Amino acid sequence: MTEAWDALAELAVHGANVQPDQIVTVSAVIGQETLARAVAAAAYARGARFVDVFYFDPWVKRARAENADPDTLEFVPAWYGERALQHARSHGARITFAGHADLNAMDGVDPVLAGRDRLPYLREISEITAGRLTNWCIVPCPHPAWASIVYPQLNGDDAYARLWRELEHVLRLDEPDPRRAWEERTAQLSDAADRLTARRFDALELRGPGTNLRVGMLPTHRWLSADFTTVDGLAHLPNLPTEEIFTSPDPFRAEGYVSSTRPLALFDGTIVRGLRVRFEKGVAVAIDAEENADALRSRLAVDDGGLRLGEVALVDGHGRIGELGTVFFDTLLDENAASHLALGSGFPFAVGEEHGGRVNRSGAHIDFMVGSPEVDVDGVSAEGALVPVLRGGDWQI
Amino acid sequence: MTEAWDALAELAVHGANVQPDQIVTVSAVIGQETLARAVAAAAYARGARFVDVFYFDPWVKRARAENADPDTLEFVPAWYGERALQHARSHGARITFAGHADLNAMDGVDPVLAGRDRLPYLREISEITAGRLTNWCIVPCPHPAWASIVYPQLNGDDAYARLWRELEHVLRLDEPDPRRAWEERTAQLSDAADRLTARRFDALELRGPGTNLRVGMLPTHRWLSADFTTVDGLAHLPNLPTEEIFTSPDPFRAEGYVSSTRPLALFDGTIVRGLRVRFEKGVAVAIDAEENADALRSRLAVDDGGLRLGEVALVDGHGRIGELGTVFFDTLLDENAASHLALGSGFPFAVGEEHGGRVNRSGAHIDFMVGSPEVDVDGVSAEGALVPVLRGGDWQI
Repeated sequence: MTEAWDALAELAVHGANVQPDQIVTVSAVIGQETLARAVAAAAYARGARFVDVFYFDPWVKRARAENADPDTLEFVPAWYGERALQHARSHGARITFAGHADLNAMDGVDPVLAGRDRLPYLREISEITAGRLTNWCIVPCPHPAWASIVYPQLNGDDAYARLWRELEHVLRLDEPDPRRAWEERTAQLSDAADRLTARRFDALELRGPGTNLRVGMLPTHRWLSADFTTVDGLAHLPNLPTEEIFTSPDPFRAEGYVSSTRPLALFDGTIVRGLRVRFEKGVAVAIDAEENADALRSRLAVDDGGLRLGEVALVDGHGRIGELGTVFFDTLLDENAASHLALGSGFPFAVGEEHGGRVNRSGAHIDFMVGSPEVDVDGVSAEGALVPVLRGGDWQI
Repeated sequence: MTEAWDALAELAVHGANVQPDQIVTVSAVIGQETLARAVAAAAYARGARFVDVFYFDPWVKRARAENADPDTLEFVPAWYGERALQHARSHGARITFAGHADLNAMDGVDPVLAGRDRLPYLREISEITAGRLTNWCIVPCPHPAWASIVYPQLNGDDAYARLWRELEHVLRLDEPDPRRAWEERTAQLSDAADRLTARRFDALELRGPGTNLRVGMLPTHRWLSADFTTVDGLAHLPNLPTEEIFTSPDPFRAEGYVSSTRPLALFDGTIVRGLRVRFEKGVAVAIDAEENADALRSRLAVDDGGLRLGEVALVDGHGRIGELGTVFFDTLLDENAASHLALGSGFPFAVGEEHGGRVNRSGAHIDFMVGSPEVDVDGVSAEGALVPVLRGGDWQI
């Protein structure tokens, strides 16, 4: 197993493109120690000056939800945000682990209470990401507890082995040269993004079962792949795996409704199923779900921007995640299986400088999957003509 | 077990005297999660505004020692100290866990390299402690790995059960009312401290096998028990268990030599055995040991104050730790079994205000045990007369 962990850690520091003398923050949860230690070793071997591992403990969050004065649940000590901002100002690297390492911590806790305490999410992170100050990467961290919800039909060992195998596949760690494989895939995605950008659509339409939404685009919007460059010109792969192209829409021009095509797992493991969102003039005026709509609404109630769109992302039918048919109950994986939207903060760098101020701002950013082979995606030209973009998972542009 | 953890957590928040609306920091290492969560619950139940648990991972420290540029090992990001100082300025509460939760993390790592990286120790903590800004408490956290070195003759389960039993005994958790038991014991210790203070000794002499040391006292020195009060007048018990009375000596007037009477376990588990220290004009001019003198010297080489005395503590033969005869390989426990000295930072509040500036200052503070029933302790009066203070573990004053 040491080799498998080391290979994953190497991919993480490659994705973040850790540089000599950088300070590297590692955001993990209790249960992800093995990967945190392997990433620390890999980052130090690349010359990192310091690796600052922070372990979040969801059981401490539970103790808070159960015992603290509910009116204090939104409080976060100033030094949490200051650490993130100081680190960003030092132009350090950030590595974050996705995946679940515990399924029971928030069992039976009122999801609304749980949502008021938004840690480990920090509102400063949206600002740091938007400012492109840090080179960063999110990678999934395998854990037996996570495997048990992804493959409930398998016993513990088999489920964990299968999670490793599927993650290694979608991470292209089963390729002879994973870095090269990612260069090739991100080049394909960047090419699709450039072609779509060149169409200068005024809006995008999504139509399928339970979905009929028109999203307005800003005039200078750019479609991007997850192949980022910092303000210092440092290339990095912010998400591994990644199969999406994305942009930030006009936060005041969404009309219609969407239905989620995959369950949405919130950070604490709360799973929102059967989500339906209705938009009017860009605002999500109705958020309903078969399960846990409350928990989602609570997480978006951070600020006014929480209910507007910050991201539209398209995923074709040729990535490695969608074809598995596996629901990972984790946004990093599931969002790359299907086209998706995000409520909350957008990416100012996805539009021309003159429109950067119009991209949505919020302390929240929650992706939810609305794409499937049954969902058609059209571009709407400046003249109002509908131009097919995705049909049955295939690009039409 | 839940009840035992909860009782220990209750004692910790009682010791720190956690107040409504305080921010409580909890310093733990990976492996001490159960107590951290119980303490969080107990602190929130007392009305804490936020409980900030930081888990230190000694295996990340190992990854650093093995892979990082050795010249960077002393670097600590500014936000580590700033967090501690901001928290102190908010007059928050601090709870720290003693005990070992891992024995192998630093195995085979050059102790000098390991010592250059002083984390999780922060130099700011000495300043915060000296300024009495926070109400705090250190308690031991039982762990099977710790039990295995304390009772190597027992199997794992028996050793762990024995560690719990002995810790509950020395923590007086086996009393019907542990808080009351601590009130009584700290009252006894405070009384002994007051009697010793009243003697206004000019110096103290320790004499026994391998020990012959005279330590000069500052004119306004006060002997204290570990029953502290913050600048806000908040009483707290900084160490549980505690059996000592202590003061800070004149850092320029130690002459002679001492031999340790118990092994000294450094934070990372490095054990210094057979320690001998020779003092000239207050400076530890020679530090030798049968094992790991290097590691100790490296930890004291922080600054000039690291080699001068910051504390002299006397422990009578009637506490609960010494009578067990157990070596816990942990300073919190072992220092309360026998009289001890500490190299490094002292306590300005243990002398009159006019002499506070003369107490030793350092980023280090390392206690080592020099007392035993064979070690006689005398006071030296202003006229130079020797007055017996401790004989065979009994107070003579």
